[in-house]
Amino acid sequence: MINRLVIIGVGLIGGSLALALRNSGACREVIGVEPDIDTLQKAQNLGVIDHYVLDACAAVKGADIVVLATPVGAISSICHSLRGCLDEYTVLTDVGSVKAAVVDSVRTGLGYLPKKFVPAHPIAGLERSGVEAATADLYQGRRVILTPLAENDPNAFDIVSRMWEKAGALVEKMDMLHHDQVLAATSHLPHLLAYTLVTSLSRLNEQDEIFRYAASGFRDFTRIASSDPIMWRDICLNNKSAILQMLDHFGQDLDRLKKAIESGDDNQLLSIFQHAKHIRDRTCN
Amino acid sequence: MINRLVIIGVGLIGGSLALALRNSGACREVIGVEPDIDTLQKAQNLGVIDHYVLDACAAVKGADIVVLATPVGAISSICHSLRGCLDEYTVLTDVGSVKAAVVDSVRTGLGYLPKKFVPAHPIAGLERSGVEAATADLYQGRRVILTPLAENDPNAFDIVSRMWEKAGALVEKMDMLHHDQVLAATSHLPHLLAYTLVTSLSRLNEQDEIFRYAASGFRDFTRIASSDPIMWRDICLNNKSAILQMLDHFGQDLDRLKKAIESGDDNQLLSIFQHAKHIRDRTCN
Repeated sequence: MINRLVIIGVGLIGGSLALALRNSGACREVIGVEPDIDTLQKAQNLGVIDHYVLDACAAVKGADIVVLATPVGAISSICHSLRGCLDEYTVLTDVGSVKAAVVDSVRTGLGYLPKKFVPAHPIAGLERSGVEAATADLYQGRRVILTPLAENDPNAFDIVSRMWEKAGALVEKMDMLHHDQVLAATSHLPHLLAYTLVTSLSRLNEQDEIFRYAASGFRDFTRIASSDPIMWRDICLNNKSAILQMLDHFGQDLDRLKKAIESGDDNQLLSIFQHAKHIRDRTCN
Repeated sequence: MINRLVIIGVGLIGGSLALALRNSGACREVIGVEPDIDTLQKAQNLGVIDHYVLDACAAVKGADIVVLATPVGAISSICHSLRGCLDEYTVLTDVGSVKAAVVDSVRTGLGYLPKKFVPAHPIAGLERSGVEAATADLYQGRRVILTPLAENDPNAFDIVSRMWEKAGALVEKMDMLHHDQVLAATSHLPHLLAYTLVTSLSRLNEQDEIFRYAASGFRDFTRIASSDPIMWRDICLNNKSAILQMLDHFGQDLDRLKKAIESGDDNQLLSIFQHAKHIRDRTCN
């Protein structure tokens, strides 16, 4: 049982975790921390948090677990405001889509890296954002990747692990840098392509007509371009090298395809499409 | 009422049209033509066609409407085998995803461009293909673009139009070259990006792991990479200039994003993502 849980950043991700833990009876008290008081009041009205505390340092006193659920870019300054505030037994974790940069931010912000800080990344999300979009079942059956640090207190790892299991998630462990590479490939690159596709089409003269004729495949393809721009800005700034590497890979493969189209190389085109279809059918169905 | 409908190429697209017209009672007799006799027997067993004729020239005799529903790359040779076979009153149409090249193929194949040939493109499809995937409701509420030719018999246009309406589709008219540009943007480019994304990920060492961690956004994004490789080879070969132009636009926008990531330009990143989200939300929801 978690006695006191503090969620810093009460949006879709933090709010859904709070709801899941409250619903499963895994948590006695949830305290919300947010710069925006309207959000906090909304969260309280929606039953996402029990109450809120405006001062982050005061909020975390006596907490069993503190979850950093702000955009990644805000973690360093939030941690700075938590300097000297965390009790020794308090477990700290986060929900960021990048891990190495978050660990740096926590270290820089707090001035040290707590043994009880266990980085985590729930692989779940919606195109919608904000606490209004929070649901208790967001993590049901979804993977949460923990990237424990060498210096971690093993007990803290177990506590974070159990918290996510209580929220319905499947917990896995991964090396931090490996996580950032895997996610650059499976999540960051597709999001950047979707955003860029929408950008490219929006430049065309016949913009409205273009989107009117977009078939359902296009809608699926670009759904992720409705995700939160601030979150994606922060991901780009904080997983730069892995993302740039994936963009390079992709650019090379796109060039190869372009050359095959230019030269009318029917065999090459067929083999590119057959290979991709084979891989997609084998792995995603 | 269509007395005799001939479908050349009994796959998902042609088969679904046949089913829709038979179900709505708009058609007395559907004849299938296909190089593959197993497909023809399957189509007959599934009730997609009434019967089949192996010789295309014999099949089209006395037809009210002949629908070319083969991959685009096969249209020229099919039309060659129809030389001198079409009755003067027979309306010819197709279902190809590109239009200018199909018109050329029909002209080259038949040796002339019939006044009763009305190019058409149903904006519908599934990742599955083949006659087993055919359904009577594939075109329900979907757009079908007709790109009539200057020399068209207006009566032929009305006949093709009514046929699609009977199949549940919404018929629209568009200039042929404009169609090819609009589709390059809304359909061809997204498909090529999805195929290329899967290709790029399949090169990574941790291929299986990569696909295991792919979130639902990734699945949606790459669903279209399961489409028929032959169809996409033919589209690339037959809408070359419009596709290459879109690939150039996209490449420029991707470069701009890449530069913003490289230089850590947070304002530029935020503005790219905000603009794309705004456009996506405005047009697709």
